[in-house]
Amino acid sequence: MPPFNPIVAALPATVPFVGPETQERARGRSFLARLGANESVFGPAPAVRAAVARAADEAWAYGDPEAFELRNALSALTGAAPERITVGSGIDGLLGVAARLFAGHGDAVVTSLGGYPTFSYHVDGLGARRVSVPYRDDREDWEGLAAAARAERARIVYIANPDNPMGTVWPAQAICDLRAALPEDCMLFLDEAYLDFAPEGTAPEFPADDPGVIRFRTFSKAYGLAGLRVGYALSAPEIARGFDKLRNHFGVGRVAQAGALAALGAQDWLAEVVAQVARGRSRLALIAEENGLAAIPSATNFAAIDCGGDGEFARAVLREVVARDVFIRMPGVAPLDRCIRVSVGTEADLDLFADVLPQALAAAKAGRGRNAP
Amino acid sequence: MPPFNPIVAALPATVPFVGPETQERARGRSFLARLGANESVFGPAPAVRAAVARAADEAWAYGDPEAFELRNALSALTGAAPERITVGSGIDGLLGVAARLFAGHGDAVVTSLGGYPTFSYHVDGLGARRVSVPYRDDREDWEGLAAAARAERARIVYIANPDNPMGTVWPAQAICDLRAALPEDCMLFLDEAYLDFAPEGTAPEFPADDPGVIRFRTFSKAYGLAGLRVGYALSAPEIARGFDKLRNHFGVGRVAQAGALAALGAQDWLAEVVAQVARGRSRLALIAEENGLAAIPSATNFAAIDCGGDGEFARAVLREVVARDVFIRMPGVAPLDRCIRVSVGTEADLDLFADVLPQALAAAKAGRGRNAP
Repeated sequence: MPPFNPIVAALPATVPFVGPETQERARGRSFLARLGANESVFGPAPAVRAAVARAADEAWAYGDPEAFELRNALSALTGAAPERITVGSGIDGLLGVAARLFAGHGDAVVTSLGGYPTFSYHVDGLGARRVSVPYRDDREDWEGLAAAARAERARIVYIANPDNPMGTVWPAQAICDLRAALPEDCMLFLDEAYLDFAPEGTAPEFPADDPGVIRFRTFSKAYGLAGLRVGYALSAPEIARGFDKLRNHFGVGRVAQAGALAALGAQDWLAEVVAQVARGRSRLALIAEENGLAAIPSATNFAAIDCGGDGEFARAVLREVVARDVFIRMPGVAPLDRCIRVSVGTEADLDLFADVLPQALAAAKAGRGRNAP
Repeated sequence: MPPFNPIVAALPATVPFVGPETQERARGRSFLARLGANESVFGPAPAVRAAVARAADEAWAYGDPEAFELRNALSALTGAAPERITVGSGIDGLLGVAARLFAGHGDAVVTSLGGYPTFSYHVDGLGARRVSVPYRDDREDWEGLAAAARAERARIVYIANPDNPMGTVWPAQAICDLRAALPEDCMLFLDEAYLDFAPEGTAPEFPADDPGVIRFRTFSKAYGLAGLRVGYALSAPEIARGFDKLRNHFGVGRVAQAGALAALGAQDWLAEVVAQVARGRSRLALIAEENGLAAIPSATNFAAIDCGGDGEFARAVLREVVARDVFIRMPGVAPLDRCIRVSVGTEADLDLFADVLPQALAAAKAGRGRNAP
């Protein structure tokens, strides 16, 4: 066959995440609770469902490639001028384009070891040189990231705040300090997918025209619209114009734009979801405690629960939870992989998880006694 | 600001298409007919609208990244095994990924001068060396494309069959001959966006495992789902696995997949749309004729109407049509730009166009007599 270009030819055949549907097909059985992808089980607002249904009648027409109405609504929400806002196919899609804007083959890009796999996937796809900095105390190590950026002459540093997969958070000042510590020619990519769940004081203030930062946000989490795939980037205007040179201009369809716009109009729903998520996080912490475990304090819609052993033990716990029809995931590398990661579910979802976890722990201990706590 | 990577820094600030919504905002007035983007004004099937509305309730969950059900349904329709099918964010999104699979900075990629601008945009975005072959007799010149591929040691040759923007078509054998004439290390990208409208005998038969061809198809045209943005690529399995190394795995949302799946189930609707489009094409030819012009015979859901003068005259006609609230587009380069391009509309749309065209022609002649026919 005609050869792939050398960068692609060198890539491994791994994907960032295997979907729960793939697991369901392999198991021959559906999950009873879907708590592995940090989706919002509370769903989008009723008004959003109505807007999507209405938009179905206009699904024959391409979406506005400038997403004018949506960007204006985002401008009203965020205070960022519309020319600073780029709408894309979720944060995943935006990260792929953004990485191409600044990095190419051989360029250094800094991220955390065990951080968001899809960002790493995009970096690897460019043939860039990925430099991974270990977490420190279950947080992304912003000082270590900045030091690596300087040492490696990186083009991009990526950090998620709040973080995934650990759910930890830095106060705004730490992110500002990270920004200030970066070399002048290094971009900061700040992934704020979980910002809606975080405490006041998490979002840093940057000058509106700071060209050194891109912030990434999404409708897939608190707004409950993972199934529409809409995200946005906040940047300096010249960077937004850069996105326009690479992005798939008609990539966010009319239906998705209509849904996102309606979601922005339903801020009461958002507030209610955030409150429900806070209650769910407390419940997850309680469930962990009842099993002699600790949930790592979370600023997100999920909790990393420290299973008290090593990665092998946590993987056994995960397998046993999954075998009991609850979809969860876990971090990929040590020492984070001593945890399982559980999204906030409905009360019924969490009741099920509360039933299943002690069984899974017992089964994991029975099967893998050597590594159990 | 931190510098863009050199490839991006060198790109022009042009976009493949300006959306009709942008024009409406500039005009301060909506279009009365939307005949410029080759959408299907007949819309998706009623069952599709219902499926999208139902899917809105599940919009909180990511779509299956493997698009298992949709790929199986596409397999049943096309006869291609599911492992040969890649689902993506429209043909535009798939072309962007596919170009990256085979071409990089400085590699030659062959397309037609005046061919699909979004493919050229993706090629330019890679810093690849774009080689453009003029049309011949208003068709993409497959012999010229093959000759250029050999002469330039191209990695990719792109052809659309039926073609956009001229609407012309080659019989299957010509595409097979093009394939056979390419060097062994050159991919053929065959864009079949308009295949549903084309006569029997347009789709070539390639061996199922031919690794030298990727065919691109879409739900945005005959299926009436441009607003959901779903397309698919048919390729050898090893190329589909290549897509999996670069694509945005969760990029096609749950709602879009549900809509596309329902559309595949509504083949009667598709047949009816195709019949309506054929009638609409005849009507467009008649309207052209009534104005002393000729529509180029079309195998698509649009017609290129030769305005009988040069590009400047056709641009004046287009401006005058648009000023009368009918959105149309036209080819970008000579000699194709002697034409305006008009999508098939509803009867009411075409009534309006029939009213507007003679006025526009008269105004264009009055304003730009030198270049009029």
